[in-house]
Amino acid sequence: MSLLTVGSVAFDAIETPFGKTTKIIGGAGTYIALSASYFTRDQKIVSVVGGDFPQETLDDLKSRGISIEGIQIKKGEKTFFWAGKYHNDMNSRDTLVTELNVLEKFDPVVPDSYQGVDFLMLGNLAPAVQRLVIERLKTRPRFIAMDTMNFWMDIAWNDLMETIKLVDILIINDEEARQMTKEYSLAKAAKKIMELGPKHLIIKKGEHGALLFGPGKVFFAPALPLEEVFDPTGAGDTFAGGFIGYLAKTGDTSFENMKRAVIAGSAMASYCVEKFGTERIMNLTEDEINTRIKQFRNLIDYEVEQVI
Amino acid sequence: MSLLTVGSVAFDAIETPFGKTTKIIGGAGTYIALSASYFTRDQKIVSVVGGDFPQETLDDLKSRGISIEGIQIKKGEKTFFWAGKYHNDMNSRDTLVTELNVLEKFDPVVPDSYQGVDFLMLGNLAPAVQRLVIERLKTRPRFIAMDTMNFWMDIAWNDLMETIKLVDILIINDEEARQMTKEYSLAKAAKKIMELGPKHLIIKKGEHGALLFGPGKVFFAPALPLEEVFDPTGAGDTFAGGFIGYLAKTGDTSFENMKRAVIAGSAMASYCVEKFGTERIMNLTEDEINTRIKQFRNLIDYEVEQVI
Repeated sequence: MSLLTVGSVAFDAIETPFGKTTKIIGGAGTYIALSASYFTRDQKIVSVVGGDFPQETLDDLKSRGISIEGIQIKKGEKTFFWAGKYHNDMNSRDTLVTELNVLEKFDPVVPDSYQGVDFLMLGNLAPAVQRLVIERLKTRPRFIAMDTMNFWMDIAWNDLMETIKLVDILIINDEEARQMTKEYSLAKAAKKIMELGPKHLIIKKGEHGALLFGPGKVFFAPALPLEEVFDPTGAGDTFAGGFIGYLAKTGDTSFENMKRAVIAGSAMASYCVEKFGTERIMNLTEDEINTRIKQFRNLIDYEVEQVI
Repeated sequence: MSLLTVGSVAFDAIETPFGKTTKIIGGAGTYIALSASYFTRDQKIVSVVGGDFPQETLDDLKSRGISIEGIQIKKGEKTFFWAGKYHNDMNSRDTLVTELNVLEKFDPVVPDSYQGVDFLMLGNLAPAVQRLVIERLKTRPRFIAMDTMNFWMDIAWNDLMETIKLVDILIINDEEARQMTKEYSLAKAAKKIMELGPKHLIIKKGEHGALLFGPGKVFFAPALPLEEVFDPTGAGDTFAGGFIGYLAKTGDTSFENMKRAVIAGSAMASYCVEKFGTERIMNLTEDEINTRIKQFRNLIDYEVEQVI
């Protein structure tokens, strides 16, 4: 089934304890679409870049079955740019530069050819922009997933609450879930968030895995214990892309299938962190992905019905 | 099979955001033995208490199949006492009082009736004391498990290294594993620790579950996402007690069975935190334990062989 992603297509500059990049390709929309492209060839993206964005990257996205008709190119302007530096534990980072550039006045145009899309993934953007995309789709997609971040909780709370009501699943990290609800317990936070609108929720816990919540249900997917996390940038978006891509591929939004989608997303994210930026997830084979699915299975596999 | 636990039998005073206790029964040995008592009735304990320790608690341990012949009672002295206060997130705590008392000069006497024991659990104590117990057993137990803490890494590193060489599995938390190896990655830390002697290792991650490592193998057990953690005191010891108790019950130390033992330990620990001190784990039914085993299964259950 078809998938539309809305999200930034951008430049990043990244510094980790392992090294440093110059300006490389980044952006939530890029990571999501690349990750999802392993699962569906019927993909579209809504975004905006400046005249400085390389045509070959756009061509590359296209070659992966991603329609780029919805990527506006603002000739005289510059692409969104983020620079960050990770601390030694790789779990926290400092933002060094944020240049909004073309994102500052981003008006998401939805091309006619995008109408009737089945799945919608709202990457992390201003909640008002995310909502605009939902409104500009003449028929509501079968399934809408949404990412957000604490920044929007701080400066656009009301907008966030409006948008959140309209989606089927929210995908955020543990810190964001706690800030959103003022609850430390993720089980309690999940209950509160699901009262805000979405019937489902994913809480990403980075190296500690991810929790999927549904009505009266909870599922936990572990993270692989990796020896080396080279660069965590984009791991959350790559997770979201694998998740929504798998749902679009299978067209099945049951809780059972969402569990599989969480495993698919976790596998994609586990590859993402192996190299800088999008490098690893641009060059995966189907075998590699399925091999990792087996590693996840082995990691948690045990047989016991009762212990006493 | 028979199980010998060495560990403190003590008093605790605990303060959490939910309330405060007076002096209640605590101690690593107590938690381990109580937890293991659901799995085996052939249990022994080596410890020391003062004349102030209640006889009814010792009688209660005895009624659970735990031989208390190895608990020395120092009439004119006082029992080990620890007081602590948990922070709001329940993941960190301040120690308010540590009175070593009888533990200061603890010479672990192993009664003759304890000889020939099959399983040995070394609760968190000075590594030299732990080693003394191994040396005082005329035949080496089939399987030796050991807990320790960062305190001993700081003040008794050489002793710790001597003792660690002699055990089959080390059971520590993530912070301790990192301190012991100076590695942030738990996968790397695990490799280094297993080079120190033990062929197996468990790294407890609290609310994030536990990892079991063996030669070329890794297993991850999740923690249940609990709405309320009432008091985390003793959860790690309760985990260890469930783990070693299950191994002693089954007499099987294969990696596959250790996985089940980790799940058993996790189930016990998840009950421990529901009430202050040992209250909850003193009053469990077999049904409750097996119900939780099912909850663990449901939490991580999914079916997928490949995603692409």
